Amino acid sequence: MTGDLRSHLKLYVIPDLRAGAPRSLMEQARAALAGGAGTVQLRHKTASGRELCRLGEALAALCDDAGALFFVNDRLDVALACGASGVHLGLEDLPVAVARRLAPPDFLVGATARTPEQALRAWKDGADYLGVGAVAPTPTKEDTTVIGPEGFAAVAASVPLPCVAVGGITAAAVPDLRRRGAAGVVVVREAVGAPDPAEACRRLRELLDA
Amino acid sequence: MTGDLRSHLKLYVIPDLRAGAPRSLMEQARAALAGGAGTVQLRHKTASGRELCRLGEALAALCDDAGALFFVNDRLDVALACGASGVHLGLEDLPVAVARRLAPPDFLVGATARTPEQALRAWKDGADYLGVGAVAPTPTKEDTTVIGPEGFAAVAASVPLPCVAVGGITAAAVPDLRRRGAAGVVVVREAVGAPDPAEACRRLRELLDA
Ligand code: NI
Repeated sequence: MTGDLRSHLKLYVIPDLRAGAPRSLMEQARAALAGGAGTVQLRHKTASGRELCRLGEALAALCDDAGALFFVNDRLDVALACGASGVHLGLEDLPVAVARRLAPPDFLVGATARTPEQALRAWKDGADYLGVGAVAPTPTKEDTTVIGPEGFAAVAASVPLPCVAVGGITAAAVPDLRRRGAAGVVVVREAVGAPDPAEACRRLRELLDA
Repeated sequence: MTGDLRSHLKLYVIPDLRAGAPRSLMEQARAALAGGAGTVQLRHKTASGRELCRLGEALAALCDDAGALFFVNDRLDVALACGASGVHLGLEDLPVAVARRLAPPDFLVGATARTPEQALRAWKDGADYLGVGAVAPTPTKEDTTVIGPEGFAAVAASVPLPCVAVGGITAAAVPDLRRRGAAGVVVVREAVGAPDPAEACRRLRELLDA
């Protein structure tokens, strides 16, 4: 399943209680997978460790059944505990080198990068893919730095790792981001905030497969 | 250092930014160790993973120099990353069995228990010691259940593990808790909230060694 990492990263969905209300994270993930998501991430900053484990186990089983990858944000311990494909590490999360050292070799480590310097560092530290952004402003993460499509392209060109575009991604932006080297896109609102999340994912998939 | 777990647990200090203001967690830990603390725990619910790693590495080195044990609350990944003696798992943190499965055999796992049932479960799941309480009301954790000294004694009598009394512990309560089977006490405010935390720890040590 991880041999084709790049193809799994095409459509990367992060369920979100606020953006996807009133649907649960499980319901959102199920719809995303039905619509063709190849990767799902568990990100829930206010959940307890125990709740994250429960959610992680349920999401890991769901993704496994769908042949999709499953990442846990920040919490390497939760990711290892629930049998996730890997962990995604933001710039303020555990360092990539630490995760690489603690996790088994086939465990995937994703990292966030906003600049070519951060991307090179993450690559050298053993990251398997990069989430690069924010490409556009987003209400999901209000405090983040916006680098635009040009910023994305500069980072993607700097390392031999699959780079997924993240932050305020809309369907309309997909063709341009693909031309700029995006292996895929990370979506929250554009997928789970849609009236029909599965259908929204199907439309994103079409644009990504074109 | 861990062969004498019980003696290290006698005086268990948790630095706290609020209770110990304006001192930093490092300053509080240094004072506690100077006053005879045998164990220090890193608990900081709002710090990022990266900040926890930085703090954990600094505290682990400090405790190592002092011959004290060092635990990280909840975050097994941070505990493993910074070379802590172990992890402490509250009732809403990672399950004990999960930590036991992921960590090396000599890594210590502490668990919280309020009832004999929870204590037996934690023991069977592989916990090395129990934090039992809250013995008294405490402003550090306002939502917690108070079990009193009798509740502490009932839990401590139910398992063959060292049990430390936690929650609103004062120096005045120490002799009674020792008679009721406490291997030691976990203190926040009573140690780091004192005008002279090292001196407060020295007085607690005297009561504990009596
Ligand atoms: Ni020792």
